[in-house]
Order: sequence, then C-alpha cells, then structure tokens
Amino acid sequence: MNVNKNYFNLKDSYLFVNIAKKVKEYAAANPDKNIIRLGIGDVTKPLVPAVVKAMRSAVDEMGAADSFRGYGEEQGYAFLRQAICGYYAAKGVILCESEVFVGDGAKSDLGNILDIFSTDNTVLIPDPVYPVYADTNIMAGRKIIYANGNIGNNFLPLPGKNTKADIIYLCSPNNPTGAVYNKQQLKLWVEYALENDAVILFDSAYEIFIQDTSLPTSIYQIDGAKECAVEFCSLSKTAGFTGVRCGYTVVPHELKRNGTEINKLWLRRQTTKFNNVSYIVQRGAEAVFSTEGLTQNKENINYYLQNARIIADALTNLGIWFAGGKNSPYIWLKCPNGLSSWEFFDCLLEKANVVGTPGAGFGDNGEGFFRLTAFGKKENVVEAMRKFENVL
Amino acid sequence: MNVNKNYFNLKDSYLFVNIAKKVKEYAAANPDKNIIRLGIGDVTKPLVPAVVKAMRSAVDEMGAADSFRGYGEEQGYAFLRQAICGYYAAKGVILCESEVFVGDGAKSDLGNILDIFSTDNTVLIPDPVYPVYADTNIMAGRKIIYANGNIGNNFLPLPGKNTKADIIYLCSPNNPTGAVYNKQQLKLWVEYALENDAVILFDSAYEIFIQDTSLPTSIYQIDGAKECAVEFCSLSKTAGFTGVRCGYTVVPHELKRNGTEINKLWLRRQTTKFNNVSYIVQRGAEAVFSTEGLTQNKENINYYLQNARIIADALTNLGIWFAGGKNSPYIWLKCPNGLSSWEFFDCLLEKANVVGTPGAGFGDNGEGFFRLTAFGKKENVVEAMRKFENVL
Repeated sequence: MNVNKNYFNLKDSYLFVNIAKKVKEYAAANPDKNIIRLGIGDVTKPLVPAVVKAMRSAVDEMGAADSFRGYGEEQGYAFLRQAICGYYAAKGVILCESEVFVGDGAKSDLGNILDIFSTDNTVLIPDPVYPVYADTNIMAGRKIIYANGNIGNNFLPLPGKNTKADIIYLCSPNNPTGAVYNKQQLKLWVEYALENDAVILFDSAYEIFIQDTSLPTSIYQIDGAKECAVEFCSLSKTAGFTGVRCGYTVVPHELKRNGTEINKLWLRRQTTKFNNVSYIVQRGAEAVFSTEGLTQNKENINYYLQNARIIADALTNLGIWFAGGKNSPYIWLKCPNGLSSWEFFDCLLEKANVVGTPGAGFGDNGEGFFRLTAFGKKENVVEAMRKFENVL
Repeated sequence: MNVNKNYFNLKDSYLFVNIAKKVKEYAAANPDKNIIRLGIGDVTKPLVPAVVKAMRSAVDEMGAADSFRGYGEEQGYAFLRQAICGYYAAKGVILCESEVFVGDGAKSDLGNILDIFSTDNTVLIPDPVYPVYADTNIMAGRKIIYANGNIGNNFLPLPGKNTKADIIYLCSPNNPTGAVYNKQQLKLWVEYALENDAVILFDSAYEIFIQDTSLPTSIYQIDGAKECAVEFCSLSKTAGFTGVRCGYTVVPHELKRNGTEINKLWLRRQTTKFNNVSYIVQRGAEAVFSTEGLTQNKENINYYLQNARIIADALTNLGIWFAGGKNSPYIWLKCPNGLSSWEFFDCLLEKANVVGTPGAGFGDNGEGFFRLTAFGKKENVVEAMRKFENVL
C-alpha cells in the first residue's frame, strides 16, 4: 500500500511557529516589556446577542423530544440558505437556494472542491496569498503557476496575454495584502476565464469589510461570472465565527464544464463526504443575517475598521508604502529602510515590542513586506502605533 | 479545464428516493392506514441533559468578551481528546492525545482520509455495506474488490488466501447487517493487513451497542492493530449527535507506510483543509464522556436495544433467518418465501403498513435481504411486529 506521495512535496510551514518562538524568547529575556500582538488573524469580539440567543434556543430544542432534530438537510437547512440568498439579493445578486451550499468554513470548501476537478488542470495562484491554495493543489499533484502581486500593480495582479490556467484563485479583499479588486479589474479575470474555459475560485471571506460601494463584494456583480466562478464565503470574520465554524459556497447552475453542471458534482461530493454543520450552528448563522444580527455585527466590523484606519494613518504619517487599511482588516506595508520581512520583524519586536507577520510567509513576492491586522483591541493598536512611530 | 471524470462512474442512488416515493403513493391512496417506519437510520431520542447543559454554557461563553474563543486547537480541543483517551482507556486501549483527531463525523473522515493514500491502491469493501465506502473510492478512480457477506459466513467475510488488497474497510457492528466480528475473526484481518502491508479503515460507529463483553469494541483490542489500522467513530449513534455533528478518528503513531507516519499525513491534511468543529459542539461531546453523560446516554442505548430485541424475538418466532438484533441497532433478515428485497418491501408496506429498507440497496449480496432498524418508538416497534406476524 502506498501513501499519496504528493504530500512529500509539501514544505512544512514554520511561519507561525517561528513567530511564537521568537516572541517567547524575547518575552522571557524582557519580562518587563508589554508586547502587543498585531499579527493575529483571529477575531477578538464575542458573538453578538442575536446569535447567542438563536444558538441557546437551538440547544434547548435539541434537548426536547418534540423539537429534537437528527440528520439535517444535506446542503444545509433551507432557513439558512434562504437567509444567504436574501443577503445576496441585497447586493443585487439573485441566487436560488440550490446554488447555496452551507459548510464549516471557506478553508474546508476551498480545499474540498478540488476533489471535483481533474488533477491535470493548471492552477493559477496570486503571490502573495493565503498559503492553503497552493498546499491543497500540491497535495493533488497539480501544476501551479503564480500571478505576481507587487507595488506596481498594487498587489492586484491581472491576467496576462500568455497566461495559461484552468483554475484561478482570487481573494478580494486579499489576505494578506488587504488589496481589493475593482469591477473593471474583476471583469478582466471573468473575461479571461470565459475565453479560456477556466474556472475562478473566488474567496470573498473579507467582503464585509468593503465600505466603498463602488467595489464589488461578490464576483457575481460582474456580468458573466455565473458561467465561470464559484464563490466561497465564511462567517468567521463577518460574524466572529472562527470558533463556531460556518461558511457557504455558491455554485451557480450556469457554471458547466465537460457538459456537466459543477453544482451537480459538488452536491455529489458534499452528500457523499459531508453531513453539514450542527443545527445549533446553522441557527446561529441564520441570526447573523437577521436585521438585528446585521446591525449588531456592523458595530464589530466598524470597530475593526477603525483599528485599520489608526494603523493606516500612522503609516501615512511616516511615509511608508502600504496596501489595505481600508475595506479590509489587513495592512500590508513595505518594510522601511530596505529591511527583509524577518529583519523588520526582529526590529519591531525588539524596539517597539510589537508583533506582526513577515510577508515572506505568504509567498516569494511577500519578501520585504509585512502584515499587520486590525483584530486587536483599540487601545493596544493606538499604543502599538505610537511605539512604531517612535522607532521609525 | 476538466472535471474529475471519475465522478461520471458513480451511479445515482435512488434507494431512499424510491422508498419515499412508494410510501408517499401508498399513503395518498390509503389515507386511513397508519404507516410505521422501521427503515430510518436516524436516532429519535433528544440529547441528554448533561450535553444540553454543557452546550448552553459554551454558547454563553462565546457571547462574553472574557470567555470568547476564536480558532480552536487544530486537532480538536485537548479537553475533548483527553476525554476520548479516557473512554479508550476504559476499554483497555491506551492512546496518547496526539493520536486522536476530532472531526464532524465518521462520514467526513472516512471520505477525507483517502486524500492521503495513493490512487493506485486496491480497495477491499465488504458487500453488503454502507455505500459511501465504494462511492468515495470511485471518485478517486481506485480499483475496488468486494468481500462477500452471506448466510454462510453470517455476513462476516474473512480474508481469503488470494485476497490482494491495500486498503480494507471493516464496519463492526456492521451497517446494514448488524453482524459483529469477534476477536478471533478481527485477528485474521489484522494478520492479513500486517502480512500484506495493507491498512484497515475500521468503522466503529456502532460500538456503543455491543453488550457482549467478549466482542471487541475497538480494533486496537487486537494485538498488532496499531501498526495497521485507523479507527473511525462518531457520536451520531452513541449520543444522538446526528444533527450536532461530532466524531473522532484514531491514527496510532505506530502506523507507518512508505517510511512515514500516517498520523503525520492526516494531521497535515486536516490542518490544511479543516478547522475542526464548533467549540460549542466540542463541549457537548466532552459531556458525552462524563460520568453523568455516559449514564444518561446508556438509557437511550438500552431503549434502542430493547426495540432490537422485540424485532429479533418476533423474527425468531416466525422462523425467519436474521443477523444483528443484539449488539447492534440493525436487524438484517432474509426475505421470506424467496421474495426479492423490493418485492418484500411492497408486501410489507401493503399488508402490514410497515416500511423497511431493501437490502439490495447496500450491495449485490444484499438482494433477497431486508434491513429493519431499532431507532423508532417502542410502541411503534411492538405494533409493527404484531402486524408483521399477522401477515406472515
């Protein structure tokens, strides 16, 4: 019996392990220092009351004989899929319930959807980006090419004339750069996919942070996208669900390849290898899309966006180049004085006692850049940027 | 771009669709009849109080700033993995926490683990059995061979001298037959796997129903199994979690192939494509393994086992051959009078107004057999078997 030897081609990622090690060592050597973490990609605000109320009630239902629920609807409960369709309708995107698949988060769905695509496809991945796009394709042995993000294109690469790709990952707002494609830019990708029979896997996990109403929050706001794109979203950042686990994937019926609806293949994959998420979680997710839930969550999003603005303003004052910082919880800055990602990490830790994430951890093009996140406490962000300014 | 064309080799399963259609038509034509369903594979008892209490408390924690939790431990929270290790220790199986992977159910893990095995392996699947073992391998294009279950071997096939398999599925207690391997029989499979460098995927989803203490409830009760088996279990039937979604997979460090720990590959798969299940669900699962939870759940299991006994006693009185009915929630009977599975289905529906599941839906060897389940209400089971006896 043989294992899947493609796994041997994966590089171990020591990014966060190395960060933790360096911070631990510094803290041990300097017990009097107050270290502020602006590297975390996890939310810190608790669940909003509407969600807590809905989940409490669902737990009680599960404990009573007359309201107990066993196996749920395979694609997710209709009540939740309807709520998601309503959320899309408010963006001007009309979906039917059978196009929405509830899941346990964008990470799972983005990895699992590869099951339904041939391993002989060539995959295009932006660099820098969320590392699991590459890892999940290395596991399947697919050929990977990269689209270079850099200061010249504001870390928003576009299709080239010689680009030859079958599966294209786009993440907008991008993790780690915070850059957001506008409609004209996304249209170029949609046109490319339509012309080349490619499929776009569009990760919109951070769409809730988009405040500029001219920017697209769904790829389906671009004409033709329903024929070439799958969209992945998550409640992790939208509603603080990183520990609750719920997301959704949209597969339009118009999207067909090899004469088959991709929706039908994904339905078969999910019904064969998945039984969806807890009824309790789905009731919580439904409450996210209620008027009450949307209003309450909006306050949390505004809080994080205010943190992002504080960071962006400080960098502007210092004359440091950065992307993101608005319409996104991420700020992607060029390391000052030509420092490498890790050199700047050490400098910031030692001189300002601030922890961020070296950009080199997100791809070759991330070298010389650095990621800060807006998910911390406001007072810590203010203090961190004050120290940051003192150092530079 | 091409889809995974192995999906075109999957047969659509109309088993439960056809059952639902026939029942609906009969009910419409006979509105005065009381139809009793003994075909359901879903639990009907609500969650026990210990689990409800733990999940209520976890929901409240998630709603408060000082107790909110974001991303959890990737393999599952230590508190739950420790509880599972304790449950195994009581069976005489010593595991370390890093050998236990929390997940959203055996169905997901049984499908997803195939990612880490080469597609050139030959897979051995018992017939009849839970259909997703075959479907998930057809999706990956693996060669499948079958181990024939029949009355001669009490639906407990053993390895043959000429058996050539790399990956072996065993399900004990079996779904749909209710048959349970004894230690001598399981030992033959373990020896086969060790001799042939094969890996056993052992589905123990129904282990809680085993009352005969001489029967193994874990494959690790067999010497050598840690070097050749992965065990999958679920709280779906153990604790009524079909709608809550939690299970666990055990991958011992001793299990190595191609010079690599399978544990390490599975860890890499899960951390790349999964973020585990809700904190709330994991707290509920922890409560299942508490003294209170175990005691409360035991009552539900005994209730289902009593139903199984009522069915088994009725079949014994009628002189009908069956497997299961004890140590299992399933009863697998030979259709009387040489009827085919579907002929008997029609007969039972029309003459006794009882619904079961045609055995032919679980594999070629299921033809001429029929599955009844013990998950209904006792009064319905008694009434169904009274009608059953009247008809036969």
